[in-house]
Amino acid sequence: MKNIYEARNISMMMDLYELTMANGYFLEEQEKKKVAFDVFYRRNPDEGGFAIFAGLEQILQYLEGMRFEEEDIAYLRSLGHFDEKFLAYLADFRFHGDVFAFPEGTVMYPNEPIITVVADLVEAQLIETELLAQVNHQSLIATKANRIVRAAKGRSVSDFGARRAHNNDAAIYGARACYIGGVNGTATVSSGQEFGIPVGGTMAHSWVMFYKDELEAFRRFAARYPHNCILLVDTYDVLKVGVPHAIQVFQEMREQGIQSRYFGIRLDSGDLAYLSRTARAMLDEAGFPEAKIVVSNSLDEYTIRSILNQGGCIDAFGVGERMITAKSEPVFGAVYKLCAVEENGVMMPRIKISENIEKVTNPGLKKVYRLHNAKGQSIVDILALQDETPETITDMLDPEKPWKLYPTEGFRFTELQTCVMKDGVRQTPPEDMAVIRQRVKDQLATEVWVEEQRFENPHKHYLDMTPAYYQEKMRLLQEEM
Amino acid sequence: MKNIYEARNISMMMDLYELTMANGYFLEEQEKKKVAFDVFYRRNPDEGGFAIFAGLEQILQYLEGMRFEEEDIAYLRSLGHFDEKFLAYLADFRFHGDVFAFPEGTVMYPNEPIITVVADLVEAQLIETELLAQVNHQSLIATKANRIVRAAKGRSVSDFGARRAHNNDAAIYGARACYIGGVNGTATVSSGQEFGIPVGGTMAHSWVMFYKDELEAFRRFAARYPHNCILLVDTYDVLKVGVPHAIQVFQEMREQGIQSRYFGIRLDSGDLAYLSRTARAMLDEAGFPEAKIVVSNSLDEYTIRSILNQGGCIDAFGVGERMITAKSEPVFGAVYKLCAVEENGVMMPRIKISENIEKVTNPGLKKVYRLHNAKGQSIVDILALQDETPETITDMLDPEKPWKLYPTEGFRFTELQTCVMKDGVRQTPPEDMAVIRQRVKDQLATEVWVEEQRFENPHKHYLDMTPAYYQEKMRLLQEEM
Repeated sequence: MKNIYEARNISMMMDLYELTMANGYFLEEQEKKKVAFDVFYRRNPDEGGFAIFAGLEQILQYLEGMRFEEEDIAYLRSLGHFDEKFLAYLADFRFHGDVFAFPEGTVMYPNEPIITVVADLVEAQLIETELLAQVNHQSLIATKANRIVRAAKGRSVSDFGARRAHNNDAAIYGARACYIGGVNGTATVSSGQEFGIPVGGTMAHSWVMFYKDELEAFRRFAARYPHNCILLVDTYDVLKVGVPHAIQVFQEMREQGIQSRYFGIRLDSGDLAYLSRTARAMLDEAGFPEAKIVVSNSLDEYTIRSILNQGGCIDAFGVGERMITAKSEPVFGAVYKLCAVEENGVMMPRIKISENIEKVTNPGLKKVYRLHNAKGQSIVDILALQDETPETITDMLDPEKPWKLYPTEGFRFTELQTCVMKDGVRQTPPEDMAVIRQRVKDQLATEVWVEEQRFENPHKHYLDMTPAYYQEKMRLLQEEM
Repeated sequence: MKNIYEARNISMMMDLYELTMANGYFLEEQEKKKVAFDVFYRRNPDEGGFAIFAGLEQILQYLEGMRFEEEDIAYLRSLGHFDEKFLAYLADFRFHGDVFAFPEGTVMYPNEPIITVVADLVEAQLIETELLAQVNHQSLIATKANRIVRAAKGRSVSDFGARRAHNNDAAIYGARACYIGGVNGTATVSSGQEFGIPVGGTMAHSWVMFYKDELEAFRRFAARYPHNCILLVDTYDVLKVGVPHAIQVFQEMREQGIQSRYFGIRLDSGDLAYLSRTARAMLDEAGFPEAKIVVSNSLDEYTIRSILNQGGCIDAFGVGERMITAKSEPVFGAVYKLCAVEENGVMMPRIKISENIEKVTNPGLKKVYRLHNAKGQSIVDILALQDETPETITDMLDPEKPWKLYPTEGFRFTELQTCVMKDGVRQTPPEDMAVIRQRVKDQLATEVWVEEQRFENPHKHYLDMTPAYYQEKMRLLQEEM
């Protein structure tokens, strides 16, 4: 058993069936056959209008670093499933494939290929679980965080969730995803350290309980942190003693000539709408209109919206368990599906049939374009054949109403996937977190219709097809029937 | 930014406020003051009757290994909050405290101290987040897995969830927690490797799609894995082609004289109750009553119960996203609360008041006993003062009806906490996973009333108090009022 401080070999983070299938392919000498897999998801979480793509940086690190150590091979040998030739192959394993992906922070929609892997069969098969775990976790949390940030309407939002996260990675990469989604900072120190996210925090109840006397506890904190002085006022009674004690300390600071850069109170329980309004009035009346009110306690986009609708006077939200676990819907369902197999040097499309029309996959290598109108608004995404270009695409159709063609004239085309890895080598340096975060902000400010951004019955973004792509899909469907 | 393969220093997995408070305590020369914190939770997930304690092993590893590297100190210095004397103290930091805890796999109930930390103030403060993250994550998943295992009524349950887990740790430690909760194995290879959990798996749709011809795909798999041959029959059409193709392959194996040790089919979509019954009849009729039927697809305790109530013919369940994320309630709310502070060499109790009676903490150092009747059934847990022993405890009371005393005569007392770390040194070697798992099984078979195990309106286990402990709590409450 490895110690929690030891580096784990993430290469072994896979489902056993990937290895048993890989062993089978290898022994059939199919391991060099080129294949393509798409990563896509089928439904936006929380009945939302879109999701935010996150997790690509960790995927690229994983693919570049992927290898099997001696102890890994020994463990696999002990399972008794694997041929020695295959184990020898694994000992020299490196990922040599190509990866095409959306930039992190891209607004994405169901059924479009966010990532496409083109690689030798065994290589492509072995990476499934880790790719999905990163996309699913980080996109889930970035999407949830973005909803919470939108509900806060410009007020500061911080991640306070580490203690309720699903273990260390969920806290650390979760804070990264929250930041991409738009939060202003995190309380989680290791996320600040690893990703340069602003870290912040106030005090716990234990500070007040340790000194027992709340006023003394506040005074000592203010003396130590005069310029970052948010006092937790709900250990005993918010309005009777907590806020009055805080005001007394702020007055004492003022009398001592301290011009605090950032001071105020935190509410962590009770009726946050009522308490924040009342505390605001008390602070204002005492001559501290610049004192901030921070609130926390099981917040999410719905409670934040409700508190603000009730006139809550709040400057900043500390959001914990419901953001870091995406409590309202903690599963992001991205899948990894075979879409093409090389036959005689040509990538031939594969399709997965289902009784359910939405579950039929989009076959073959393809391009995804986002079409913007003259105002820069994103109107529709379309799937096209590999060899179609903005110059050759003149029409598009909705696959649910394929009889009707829409002209593409006047739209600006953006190809969403770019090549981020070629023959196993990264093509781009890690992106700055601030760049990724800004990308989300910019899209929501200028490209994504507000009708797609509302929580209730958002407008459904169309994923159309070129007539040529649609015909190809229909041909394959008929072939399989 | 650290590469995903590098060891992370889990010591930095903390909330910033722990460090700012610690810096404050240190500068006030309070860092050597002895304090005690309790870890407890307030409500069982999913309205259940109990929860399963898990995560202790990783906590002990963390506490033994905890230290701050040069790069950590440099990062903290860059934040500008910390005194150089405090940073020098952190550079030499080791955890020297005592830890008392329930054994992993113990059935636990709200409001009892699962873990008690007795340590110097700063040491006790800095470990809060990691302790809670481990307890919250692993207990959440162990508890959920145990519900799913109970619903399966003796049938095999495996964890298939890694791809939907909240990143690597959630998959890897999540599989550990599932195993503690009673599942038979996991698909996650690294969890098998790290914890010795049995690993298993079948095939993906991509195997069938790669060969295109389902019958050929099945034949090739059977040739490779004749003794672990579960064929995925839903790529095209379960009853029309999937099951008939599987039967054909089983017949061919039989004709070749292969006596497969483990073979059958997996259903991953559709109406699992209907499909499994029909597939069972087809397999039986074809002369394969020993063929297994494995099912998967968004299962949890409720869908499993429903499928079995409908007469589903199922030998094994593969359970993914709803177990590994505890989807129905993905937050376990354990908290870490100060309960005592040393004053003049004596550990003086501290209490946290709340408007809400359930949120008032249980103050002071205390003992937790579980009382069993002559049949070995667990009847009640009680909190007692430090110096009370089974010999001196003659009565107990329900704090909600404190006027009524119940005699403790005839009950066997088990003290639930034991000292697992003394002066920062582990007192016990890591427990074998099989031992922890068996502990859960044994308790549910013999100790825990079936009325506490049902999903709907389970019996509420009493957490009583000795009269002396209750009086002490009341005295502290009155003092604070």
